[in-house]
Amino acid sequence: MNKVEHIGIAVTDIHVAGNIYETLLNTSVYKTETVKSEGVLTAFLQTGPNKIELLQALNDDSPIARFIAKKGEGIHHIAFEVDDIVAEMHRLKSEGFVLLNDEPKQGADNKLVCFVHPKSANGVLIELCQGIESRD
Amino acid sequence: MNKVEHIGIAVTDIHVAGNIYETLLNTSVYKTETVKSEGVLTAFLQTGPNKIELLQALNDDSPIARFIAKKGEGIHHIAFEVDDIVAEMHRLKSEGFVLLNDEPKQGADNKLVCFVHPKSANGVLIELCQGIESRD
Repeated sequence: MNKVEHIGIAVTDIHVAGNIYETLLNTSVYKTETVKSEGVLTAFLQTGPNKIELLQALNDDSPIARFIAKKGEGIHHIAFEVDDIVAEMHRLKSEGFVLLNDEPKQGADNKLVCFVHPKSANGVLIELCQGIESRD
Repeated sequence: MNKVEHIGIAVTDIHVAGNIYETLLNTSVYKTETVKSEGVLTAFLQTGPNKIELLQALNDDSPIARFIAKKGEGIHHIAFEVDDIVAEMHRLKSEGFVLLNDEPKQGADNKLVCFVHPKSANGVLIELCQGIESRD
């Protein structure tokens, strides 16, 4: 795997959180995007080669709503950039990691993504992501 | 702030977790280090420009022991690289962020560090870190 592509942070109000992270990181939110399939509104900030993705639930069924109801605001997942998401999914599956989707799915920020179950990675929800434009 | 210098993950057994993250990231633990002042054993893995820091408590008073007792294994903190930690501490304090130490302190991996209270950053424990070798 390559760099940490982004760190996803679950928040209750993306505008309030956006202001906080803009001040913290001394930069601006450069993009917001709705991912209807996940029921989330996202906001991105860049810090060096990495991104922070703020995530606000759009409805009570969203994974982010359930996360916040259980744990409160905080880090939701770490996303690692991969060159070939299908190959990485096969590799990890063969090593015994539990994947949350069998096929790559469309995520925010024009990415193909796959999640690895937190029980496979010491309580950490891991996302693999590959830029769609770089896929053959 | 610059890149995500590392992501700290609290684990109960650093050898078991080390094997899992070596497989996950397809790389090796390149360094282990004890930080007596924090009561932790650490192990580092590199992924592109970023690091994963696994943290195991060495005693029940360690912040990592308390974290795991309360929340279980999982992401403990995000560390951002800064060029001038004293200037960043002043900037954040003047913006209303609550810092957990008034002066930079010695952390793992030859760094000066300062933590920002999770209540200042939507439930996320933020670490600022500056390589000691780059300090005037």
